[in-house]
Amino acid sequence: MLTLASDFGSPYPAAMKGVILSRTDAQVVDIAHDLPRQDPRAGAFWLRETLPYFPPAVHLAVVDPGVGTDRRAIALRVGDHALVAPDNGLLRPVARRLADRDAAAIDAFEITVDEPASTTFHGRDVFAPAAAGIHAAGVDRMAAVDLLSPIDLASCVDLQFPEPTREGDTLDGEVLVVDDFGNVITNIPGEELAGIESANIHGESAPVVDTFDRVGAGERLVTVGSHGFVECDVNRGRGDEAFGLGVGDPVEIVMG
Amino acid sequence: MLTLASDFGSPYPAAMKGVILSRTDAQVVDIAHDLPRQDPRAGAFWLRETLPYFPPAVHLAVVDPGVGTDRRAIALRVGDHALVAPDNGLLRPVARRLADRDAAAIDAFEITVDEPASTTFHGRDVFAPAAAGIHAAGVDRMAAVDLLSPIDLASCVDLQFPEPTREGDTLDGEVLVVDDFGNVITNIPGEELAGIESANIHGESAPVVDTFDRVGAGERLVTVGSHGFVECDVNRGRGDEAFGLGVGDPVEIVMG
Amino acid sequence: MLTLASDFGSPYPAAMKGVILSRTDAQVVDIAHDLPRQDPRAGAFWLRETLPYFPPAVHLAVVDPGVGTDRRAIALRVGDHALVAPDNGLLRPVARRLADRDAAAIDAFEITVDEPASTTFHGRDVFAPAAAGIHAAGVDRMAAVDLLSPIDLASCVDLQFPEPTREGDTLDGEVLVVDDFGNVITNIPGEELAGIESANIHGESAPVVDTFDRVGAGERLVTVGSHGFVECDVNRGRGDEAFGLGVGDPVEIVMG
Repeated sequence: MLTLASDFGSPYPAAMKGVILSRTDAQVVDIAHDLPRQDPRAGAFWLRETLPYFPPAVHLAVVDPGVGTDRRAIALRVGDHALVAPDNGLLRPVARRLADRDAAAIDAFEITVDEPASTTFHGRDVFAPAAAGIHAAGVDRMAAVDLLSPIDLASCVDLQFPEPTREGDTLDGEVLVVDDFGNVITNIPGEELAGIESANIHGESAPVVDTFDRVGAGERLVTVGSHGFVECDVNRGRGDEAFGLGVGDPVEIVMG
Repeated sequence: MLTLASDFGSPYPAAMKGVILSRTDAQVVDIAHDLPRQDPRAGAFWLRETLPYFPPAVHLAVVDPGVGTDRRAIALRVGDHALVAPDNGLLRPVARRLADRDAAAIDAFEITVDEPASTTFHGRDVFAPAAAGIHAAGVDRMAAVDLLSPIDLASCVDLQFPEPTREGDTLDGEVLVVDDFGNVITNIPGEELAGIESANIHGESAPVVDTFDRVGAGERLVTVGSHGFVECDVNRGRGDEAFGLGVGDPVEIVMG
Repeated sequence: MLTLASDFGSPYPAAMKGVILSRTDAQVVDIAHDLPRQDPRAGAFWLRETLPYFPPAVHLAVVDPGVGTDRRAIALRVGDHALVAPDNGLLRPVARRLADRDAAAIDAFEITVDEPASTTFHGRDVFAPAAAGIHAAGVDRMAAVDLLSPIDLASCVDLQFPEPTREGDTLDGEVLVVDDFGNVITNIPGEELAGIESANIHGESAPVVDTFDRVGAGERLVTVGSHGFVECDVNRGRGDEAFGLGVGDPVEIVMG
């Protein structure tokens, strides 16, 4: 199995699929091609929340504002999974989660393609051939793939999500992503809300509930979303608009 | 084969695919993930017009404004097809169509998952495991799937599309859905227009034609669409804007 | 393998997949369903730049403003590839490229379906059955498919992209497409920029660089894109807005 994620929209991912399917008979599964554009941190969030549900696979992900510069292309092996992407931190959160879950080591490789056909579409000319090569060889035989050479994981770009802070009843966090529904997903772990019935977000109160339909249509709510983080949402509406919050904004929650 | 439809946008369906592909080796086919958001009636229309073209399969569909409340999760068996969704009527029109076409009975089951991982993403935590379980067991062995228990179909939420009325030359119908092209699809059966050359929609006349290019670019037309219903369209333009019609609006057509 | 491209948006392609998968066990791969709407020239560009990356396959493409009129439905065979589409030129550029690359002839067939179920959705009722029939029979046995009869390629609608002209240091070209990133792709071959460091587009200068990140975020650039053509782009921004250019616009580039 080979999964494919990018911020490429359409139809660029189709050329990547053609390259892959010309080189290996993988079952190709699209994760998303509308990852937030040129935002490796948001992409890293979605990869971490999605890829661990898959059976062993080669996962190819491209959000690559530095394409064609000297940023490296890398592949990581974590247990039965291989991850392929530009070296901009995109893979680190999901690699950590897989390594923790499976008590597996993370091995890193640099991908080198001599004179790729383009300087602007490495998804097609560098990453797709590398991912197909890994799939064809098998994840356990990655080290034998021509395009790969072992490197030190510590030399790869890291990416950490910011940690929230708590002082008394006040939590200070940040918006990590806004999803397609307009749900505002913060970096505050859901456990922080245990036993709390309402929260004050930037001066306005909202009930803390376990699901959307506990409040009326169009009403604001605070809940623990499916990723385990505190979300600021609206039932049958958009939380980002109602709370006036976007990616990267600080979120102050006063509990009680 | 396992088909997947939702109003989840992106990338939530990817987590569902991961759950499914971890449990069964189904060929997964996306129907759409941009079904009209939190509108079970519109979703029910598209499922009815799409799923019957498929060979025998497990069909998973999630448009679920009541997620996490006490609405049930259900599965229906109609001949060789299994249908999995929240119990909000989403499946009833397609189940009726399959039952009529194949002269098959409809058997109903409740899906029970103990303590799902989230209260807001039952697509991943309830429906995907149930659909994968049915696929792994086989549709003819649904009754043996752990998560399912038989229930009375009559206890499930029904959903009927409104019926148009006719008085003399005047048809009174309703807009069921507007498609991606802006075509306005009503609930009026195409046969009503047989032999008619023009129709008066809310006071303005439009020709009744068999296809778009019978009128000039940008001009309004009335036709029988590919679903068999009367549509109010514009050649190479948007009917919803030209006719000022949206989902749920009444449509009065005077023939002649 | 069977690839699927259209301007149908969602969920119409799902009905086509159902028809195909009911008739043949093809691996179905989506190219794109948001090809520029009812614009065969832009669709022809994307097909030419995408399909040649695929292994031998049946390629079905529908951008069809003339659906239901007397425009023909056709299939082309080029080496191991079959191409199925309305006869409006959509297939000609990709067929020429495949024929040149593989030194293959192009054989043409007309598709005839008696009384298709609709006059407005031939993707489902004409093209999908034809593509499935070709896949089931095998591309090398296309001539034996019931729905196909041989025709003269010269009788099919041709579609040529406009050629740019050069006079001294001035290149006069045209915008062929604008991609999802807002990159403005012209018909000017990249070789024209060899050795040039800056270009003057409609009176304003922009650097000629090999990739986006050579200029600051939000700054304009001219580059040779992944298709080999001159593009007018913005690093981490939209070239179409910054240059004020859209599909079909003339582009005058003064080099130096």
